Amino acid sequence: MAVRALKAMSKYLINGIAADYLHASDRTIHYGDGLFETVLCHADRLYYWPQHYSRLQQSAEKLQICCPHENVLLNDINKLLSSGTQPAAIKIILSRGCSERGYRYTQKQQPTRITSLNPLPADYSSLLNRQLAGGELFVCRQQVSINKNLAGLKHLNRLENVLARNEFKDEYIDGLMLNNNNHVIEGTMSNLFAVKNAQLYTPELDLCGVTGIMREQIMQAAEHRRIPLSVVRLTLEDLLAMDELFISNSLIGMSTVSRLAERVYTSSEITATVFNELLSTMDNYAQPV
Amino acid sequence: MAVRALKAMSKYLINGIAADYLHASDRTIHYGDGLFETVLCHADRLYYWPQHYSRLQQSAEKLQICCPHENVLLNDINKLLSSGTQPAAIKIILSRGCSERGYRYTQKQQPTRITSLNPLPADYSSLLNRQLAGGELFVCRQQVSINKNLAGLKHLNRLENVLARNEFKDEYIDGLMLNNNNHVIEGTMSNLFAVKNAQLYTPELDLCGVTGIMREQIMQAAEHRRIPLSVVRLTLEDLLAMDELFISNSLIGMSTVSRLAERVYTSSEITATVFNELLSTMDNYAQPV
Repeated sequence: MAVRALKAMSKYLINGIAADYLHASDRTIHYGDGLFETVLCHADRLYYWPQHYSRLQQSAEKLQICCPHENVLLNDINKLLSSGTQPAAIKIILSRGCSERGYRYTQKQQPTRITSLNPLPADYSSLLNRQLAGGELFVCRQQVSINKNLAGLKHLNRLENVLARNEFKDEYIDGLMLNNNNHVIEGTMSNLFAVKNAQLYTPELDLCGVTGIMREQIMQAAEHRRIPLSVVRLTLEDLLAMDELFISNSLIGMSTVSRLAERVYTSSEITATVFNELLSTMDNYAQPV
Repeated sequence: MAVRALKAMSKYLINGIAADYLHASDRTIHYGDGLFETVLCHADRLYYWPQHYSRLQQSAEKLQICCPHENVLLNDINKLLSSGTQPAAIKIILSRGCSERGYRYTQKQQPTRITSLNPLPADYSSLLNRQLAGGELFVCRQQVSINKNLAGLKHLNRLENVLARNEFKDEYIDGLMLNNNNHVIEGTMSNLFAVKNAQLYTPELDLCGVTGIMREQIMQAAEHRRIPLSVVRLTLEDLLAMDELFISNSLIGMSTVSRLAERVYTSSEITATVFNELLSTMDNYAQPV
C-alpha cells in the first residue's frame, strides 16, 4: 500500500523522501553546482555500483561537496526500485545544497541528493546484444570546452551537451564533440574508442570530457584480453583513418559506429573481443538490490 | 492580507506563482539549461530594465529557449515587490523548462521562470557613492573556459564562477578570471575596465565571459564623455602596467581596484568622469514599478 502510494506520488526522491519538487534555492538550479551518475539496474541487479559510487565520491571531494555514505544512496535506490519498473536508469544528482544568492559556498554545506528511476525499454537486454549492428555518428559543431579543473567530472554544467545533442536527429547513435584544439573528445552521452591495426585508441580526457565508467571497463577488458590500448590526442582526420570505431556508456554498454562523415566502417574482431569480454564479465559487476 | 501571506510563504515565484519549490524534472537542475538576469530595484524603480530584458530575449533566442513577454516578467516583479523590501536584487531565472531524462529538447518547449527578490543592505545607495574607495582584486587559479557559442551569455553553467569565488575571502572586491590563452576576461561577478594614458580598455568577450549590462553602460558613458575605449585582449601583465582599474556590475555599479597582486593603483580623473556620467544618467534608465 505504501509502495503503491509512493509510485503514484513521485518518481523522484529528494534526500530520500518521495517528492517531485526541489527547493528553489538549491544550487543546481542557480549554478549547476553538483554532480550526477546514471546507473543501470536490471533484474534487481545494479551494474558497476562500486565504480559509480567511487567516481561520485572522488568528484565530490574535488568540488568540496559533501558526499553521502554509500548506504544512504543504496537505500534511496531500494526505495525507488520498490515501486518502479526495470530495466531502469537510476539517476543520482548530488547537489552542493541550498544557499543564499551568490557563488560563495561553505565547505560543510548540507548536500541535496535527487534520485530518480527512469524506465528503459523492456527489451533492454537485447540492446546489449545488438551492439554490433552499429549506427552513424554525427559530427557536432558545438565544442566541449577546455577546463582542467572540471575535466573528467560528470558535473551538472551540461549546456554544451544540450546544444550538441540538438544538432542531430535520433537516426544517429550519438554526436561527436571536439575541443577547441580540434581534438576529438567524446560523444554527447558516450565515450569513444577506435581500432587500427589491432590496437585500441581512446581520447585523452585530461583537458575536458567525462571519464565514463564503461570507458574504464573497456580499458580493463582490453588489458585482460591483451589488446594494446593507447590514450591519445586524436583529430577527426585520425578517426577517418581508423579501421573501426565504437562508443560506450553505462546504459548502452558498447555500440559500434558504422559511419562517420563520408567514412563507412565495418566491425572487426577487436571490437567483438572487447564486447564479449565485457558481456561475459558484466554480471560480476552486478550486485543484487 | 494576501500580500502578507505571500511574504510569509515564499520569496520565489515559479511561473508567477508564490512557491518555494521547483519541479525536479526542470532542466536547470539537470543541465543548467537556462539563463539569468539580476536587476537592481531601488525606491520603486527598476534600473536598466529594457537592457536586461533585451539581453535575456536575445540570449534565449540563441539557445532556442522560449522567452516570456516583457509584461509577464514585469508582473512577476511587481508581485515580488508588493511584499518585499528594497533596495533589492531581482533575480530572474529563465529555464528551458521540464523534460524527460536526456539532453534533447523540443523547440517549442514551455519555459519555466523562477523569479526572486533578494534584499540588499539598507544603505545601498551609499554603496553607489562609495566606489572610489575601491578594494583589492584577487587573481583566481580557476579559469573561464572558451566557448564561442556561449560567450557573452549569462547562462546557468556557473561552476567555474563558483570554484573561482571560493578561492578568496570577502576582503577582496572580486576575483579575476583568465581564459586558457592567458587573457584576462572578467571578475567572478563583474566586468573589468582599465585606464592607461587617459584611454579606457576592456577585455574582448567573443570567446568567453558575460557581456554585462553595466559594461555596456560604461562603454556608452565613455563615448558620451569622449573618452577613447578599446575592446582588446589583455594579459595579467598588461593590467599591471595600467594606470588604474575598475570593475562593474548591475548591483555595485562601478568599483575601483586599489590593488592587484603587488601592484597598487590610485584612482584618477578618467574613472571619476565615467562614474559621474553613470551616476548622473542612471536615473534616466530607471523605470517606476
